[in-house]
Amino acid sequence: MLERLDLKNKLPKTEYNEIMDDLGLRLGLVQRKAREAKRPVILVFEGWRGARRSLIINKMMQQMDARGFNVYSVVHLTDEERQMPFFHYFWKHLPAKGNMAVFHRSWYYQKNECEVAPKGDCCKWNDTTFEHINTFEKELTVDNYILLKFFLHVSEKRQKENLAKNYKTLGKAWREVSPAYDETGHYEKFLERYERMLEATDTVNAPWHLIGANDSRRAQVEIFTTIVEAIEYALENEAKVQEQERPATAYDVLSKVDLDKTISKEEYKEKLDKYQERLTALQIEMFRAKIPAVIGFEGWDAAGKGGAIRRLTAALDPLGYSVNPVAAPNAVENQYHYLWRFWTHLPNSGTVAIFDRTWYGRVMVERLEGFAKPHEWQRAYDEIKDMEAQWAEHGIAIAKFWLQIDKDEQYKRFKEREENPFKNWKITDEDWRNREKWDAYEEAVNEMLVRTDTSYAPWTIVEGNNKYYARLKVLKTVIDLFEKKLGKD
Amino acid sequence: MLERLDLKNKLPKTEYNEIMDDLGLRLGLVQRKAREAKRPVILVFEGWRGARRSLIINKMMQQMDARGFNVYSVVHLTDEERQMPFFHYFWKHLPAKGNMAVFHRSWYYQKNECEVAPKGDCCKWNDTTFEHINTFEKELTVDNYILLKFFLHVSEKRQKENLAKNYKTLGKAWREVSPAYDETGHYEKFLERYERMLEATDTVNAPWHLIGANDSRRAQVEIFTTIVEAIEYALENEAKVQEQERPATAYDVLSKVDLDKTISKEEYKEKLDKYQERLTALQIEMFRAKIPAVIGFEGWDAAGKGGAIRRLTAALDPLGYSVNPVAAPNAVENQYHYLWRFWTHLPNSGTVAIFDRTWYGRVMVERLEGFAKPHEWQRAYDEIKDMEAQWAEHGIAIAKFWLQIDKDEQYKRFKEREENPFKNWKITDEDWRNREKWDAYEEAVNEMLVRTDTSYAPWTIVEGNNKYYARLKVLKTVIDLFEKKLGKD
Repeated sequence: MLERLDLKNKLPKTEYNEIMDDLGLRLGLVQRKAREAKRPVILVFEGWRGARRSLIINKMMQQMDARGFNVYSVVHLTDEERQMPFFHYFWKHLPAKGNMAVFHRSWYYQKNECEVAPKGDCCKWNDTTFEHINTFEKELTVDNYILLKFFLHVSEKRQKENLAKNYKTLGKAWREVSPAYDETGHYEKFLERYERMLEATDTVNAPWHLIGANDSRRAQVEIFTTIVEAIEYALENEAKVQEQERPATAYDVLSKVDLDKTISKEEYKEKLDKYQERLTALQIEMFRAKIPAVIGFEGWDAAGKGGAIRRLTAALDPLGYSVNPVAAPNAVENQYHYLWRFWTHLPNSGTVAIFDRTWYGRVMVERLEGFAKPHEWQRAYDEIKDMEAQWAEHGIAIAKFWLQIDKDEQYKRFKEREENPFKNWKITDEDWRNREKWDAYEEAVNEMLVRTDTSYAPWTIVEGNNKYYARLKVLKTVIDLFEKKLGKD
Repeated sequence: MLERLDLKNKLPKTEYNEIMDDLGLRLGLVQRKAREAKRPVILVFEGWRGARRSLIINKMMQQMDARGFNVYSVVHLTDEERQMPFFHYFWKHLPAKGNMAVFHRSWYYQKNECEVAPKGDCCKWNDTTFEHINTFEKELTVDNYILLKFFLHVSEKRQKENLAKNYKTLGKAWREVSPAYDETGHYEKFLERYERMLEATDTVNAPWHLIGANDSRRAQVEIFTTIVEAIEYALENEAKVQEQERPATAYDVLSKVDLDKTISKEEYKEKLDKYQERLTALQIEMFRAKIPAVIGFEGWDAAGKGGAIRRLTAALDPLGYSVNPVAAPNAVENQYHYLWRFWTHLPNSGTVAIFDRTWYGRVMVERLEGFAKPHEWQRAYDEIKDMEAQWAEHGIAIAKFWLQIDKDEQYKRFKEREENPFKNWKITDEDWRNREKWDAYEEAVNEMLVRTDTSYAPWTIVEGNNKYYARLKVLKTVIDLFEKKLGKD
């Protein structure tokens, strides 16, 4: 693709100045428009060293309002960041609605660097395929993110000249790239690599804008014009989303759950002690082995999520776990893609992140209450599976629990809560309202349990009418998972 | 202080269980009350190794709601964090209104560790005195943070027993402390250190709760009772703040500024090029020397802050600077102490953080519009000076600009903005309203320029009627500051 670019065309300075007077104002204007329309914008700048990326970004920044505008560099990721799944850094720095994020090198550079010049744990990222990248970009664009990707192409000769010039005025480059990622002297090799990358990731959702950058003035005009026009177009056109057909199959999982399973108080106490002791030891081993874990809890209201979580955390060291309660997204969370608040609460190396309710709200409450449109929650199954797959590939241990009780048991527990002065804050009118929609929820849960039950992130259905039984099953499942991850099964 | 604690008193298990049944519920209740009252709570757990800190925190967590509850450990600070000023980590993790932050070891441990077992750049933190700590705690408590500090004291014998027990059940401690910070075998030395620390930081605003922890059950009951009672008391009693007398002196700085200072367009262009080129080189040197810089801009509306900032940033690499526009605090920022949003936007090692309006809003707009009560903005001078002093001690280069224009010049610029279709978004009714309060603002600015002009963070007053003159003065001041910091003056 790159070789078809015209690198000889030059823009004279007077013409450039004239164009830029107007273009600069339009850049500022289009940024304000995007902010008013609450559309988030992501600009990706990739390309050769010496293509004057910094200069171009800075010229652009001069025209922009600093509010809600951030530049991120992927050259200097911290060691901590390198412990996280590949896309974590990018999810974390996703712009909020109406904001703009500029990536001075992006996930593309990161992928290339991992392959060409692996740094420590980043070799973990080598599984990240172009397909992952395409999925990530598609998820954003169908959610109305405006994503523009620029590849700045220069000839080998111009690259050499620019780098020599930089060296002369600035001394040794202050952002050093790995020696193994040195393009100079290996132009042909890298050209081939970039060609493959561009081919694989030039998609309908997120096409590349290839920019001939031998002449920086011409490159600036092309880039800024593209930004202005693309944002204006996007503001007039919501992302086109193909409505998907909903499969007609009705699934049935829940009715087959044996809710009579029970256990005596004595057996419970004895096993609880034993399991918790085991878990305490396993947490330390997981920490030493640097294996993080994500444990998600879903289930009917009053199914015993809180109680099960407490029996789990009682065995854990408070420095090695967090409990993340998930309610309706707050004002901040609402400014982002619905998966943002889960990506940003991933466990650090060797620790456990417990979610009290999870990302599956998208295909339950958001589906049933109409917070997500049909095409939004329907595509969520794929988006969620992809997210969990990425976590699993990164080595994160994942357990997902559905705590099942029947309608009578729920009624009994609601009544108990209402009557207990220390528990009645736990029960609200909303719980009673949700209960009226039991059948609709059941349909959604059945579909969810089938469609998102995967080898890398399987659902564990917990028979919950007997709390003792349920708590032990949760503990045992986590123990088994940790042992498996540690190679002890 | 510690030697007066009774370490022999034990609490039998049956009695403990009985008390805890009730105390546990009260802990949960008091947490919910604090949340409803939107009071932030900070719990600090310090004390000897082997004092069962983790166990106690975990017991407490079992009774608490995970929402808005976070545990932080100061043992594992990242290298990035160690590059920041001492209190940065704690400001960053300040709980929002209604939330609770638990510090499993805190600024006290951090200070001790720096002295006993310095790690890399943390020796920078050795200037942090107990006075700094007392100031930090006072700032929080007078702002209605509920701060409880516990020191868990155990005898040398009990410490040995507990550590041996841990080793037996858990193997080698999974949170390793520096060998130099090994208390075992040096009990007397550390006892003396802790005594000095407790003496120096046992203040009216933030007294220590000394806990005899040889018997963990008794310690738990004491700690949980203290938490319940202290929070209940705090919820009934707002922090007592002594109203300060406002000094009667009227200051006069602005009237003496010579606004006739001017410069020709030719000289401007020539010097602008020269200065920007110099600044480009200096930024790289500052980066290599790992010296961060904070540059704050204040001034009348339309005084030329934006234009001056753009001439500055035009010379900077976009990866090495950020521009932080400061408007009225947003919904998130409003949940914190007013200085939180500045602490959390400090520059990383070697980079430049530019603030377009600053923390001085507290003593200007917040003072004049009544957003801060008199005792709040009056104590702000000290709080701000202390913050800047901490940054300066840490080696951050600080420049603060006041851009001065006269009332006629402002009128001219407001009119120009209104008439220019690309600039009229910059002028709002609020600007005209603020203009009507010119005299009151002048009084506040005069006081601010006198009271917060320090050797480590001096104000530069910029004669701004002539934009060329003003922009060059800003550039030159920054150049001089960087050269001074680099030892080139």
